[in-house]
Amino acid sequence: MRTAERKRPRRTRERILETSLALFNASGAPHVTTADIADEMNISPGNLYYHFSNKDEIVLELYVAYEARVLPLYADPRGRSLGVEDLWLWLHVQHEAMWEYRFLYRDLTELTSRDRRLRTRVAALIRKGATTVVEWCREMAETGTMRISAREIEALADNVMLIAAYWPAYDRNRRATLDDAPDPGRAAYQVLSLFGPYFADEARTHLDRLSAAYL
Amino acid sequence: MRTAERKRPRRTRERILETSLALFNASGAPHVTTADIADEMNISPGNLYYHFSNKDEIVLELYVAYEARVLPLYADPRGRSLGVEDLWLWLHVQHEAMWEYRFLYRDLTELTSRDRRLRTRVAALIRKGATTVVEWCREMAETGTMRISAREIEALADNVMLIAAYWPAYDRNRRATLDDAPDPGRAAYQVLSLFGPYFADEARTHLDRLSAAYL
Repeated sequence: MRTAERKRPRRTRERILETSLALFNASGAPHVTTADIADEMNISPGNLYYHFSNKDEIVLELYVAYEARVLPLYADPRGRSLGVEDLWLWLHVQHEAMWEYRFLYRDLTELTSRDRRLRTRVAALIRKGATTVVEWCREMAETGTMRISAREIEALADNVMLIAAYWPAYDRNRRATLDDAPDPGRAAYQVLSLFGPYFADEARTHLDRLSAAYL
Repeated sequence: MRTAERKRPRRTRERILETSLALFNASGAPHVTTADIADEMNISPGNLYYHFSNKDEIVLELYVAYEARVLPLYADPRGRSLGVEDLWLWLHVQHEAMWEYRFLYRDLTELTSRDRRLRTRVAALIRKGATTVVEWCREMAETGTMRISAREIEALADNVMLIAAYWPAYDRNRRATLDDAPDPGRAAYQVLSLFGPYFADEARTHLDRLSAAYL
């Protein structure tokens, strides 16, 4: 009994996060209130406020969980084997995490404009991601897998991060729909296509086969 | 006197649009109310409602003006001279229009989710833009300016439209700021960098000079 009581607050906290994530992903965080979350969980607003003082706190904690998923992917890639397959896998794992927390990118400007802590962390993560892509490209340029200049690498890294972040929003807008396409792989395909023309012949043929198989 | 009276309503309507555009660009359309607009103009809310029944109507009319600016750029490019310089100019003109109406892209998902008419028109414009890029690339591939496959053209066209639309939002987020960078040219540079590796040698050298001069 004592154990159950000790555990309950933690469990409620986790359930608030899980429920919020589901509601945010379904409707967009700006359209979900703490009252909606409490209602969905059949708990009182007071119980929710015991754990989180407002919605921004919930968003931030979900962001921290997302960041923890993604950061290991942004470890310094130097010295590792880096071929087309590695890049394809890396993009897929990253996009799975982005898909799981897709509400973050759905209203990124709105969410970051509301909370300076979130804004600072998001910016740091984007820059870390771009730096990883730069290191990755330099490594592939040195081994001859890519033919790309230093300036091209800089522009490419930002385009990679941008398309990764905004593909779902772009895709909804071009299809005139509010629903996400149930295909996180398509974003990875679009990002990978940025690398394609820089690959030397063998790697480019390999990429072409992967792309054809995907489509 | 009679002329002045006939002209006033039209002038008020135009001023509402101009004031709304300025406020939307400065603060984001979701954060501006019709009361803010009337207040900024020193007119009564009733006067504003005489011209526009709500904010969505103002947003839609501004969008229609933006669309009229951009559509001529999406005319069928076949048969025209299409070199690196033309592409660079085309991107700059497009990005100037996007910069002038930047509130549209700042909260695109939010705005299109509120208004089906806007959603349908935005989707049509994006698809028309992507089709123009596809035609443009096919033309350059035929004349030997680009070396690119049909599949690569499709992926490139979406990446072009995506980066054009979302560069300002991405740029703010990576810099952890709420302010737009006062450099619409940078978006055009990022988009042009997508074409670079597909250009055949002479065009690529030309692009490299343009890029170096820009940076």
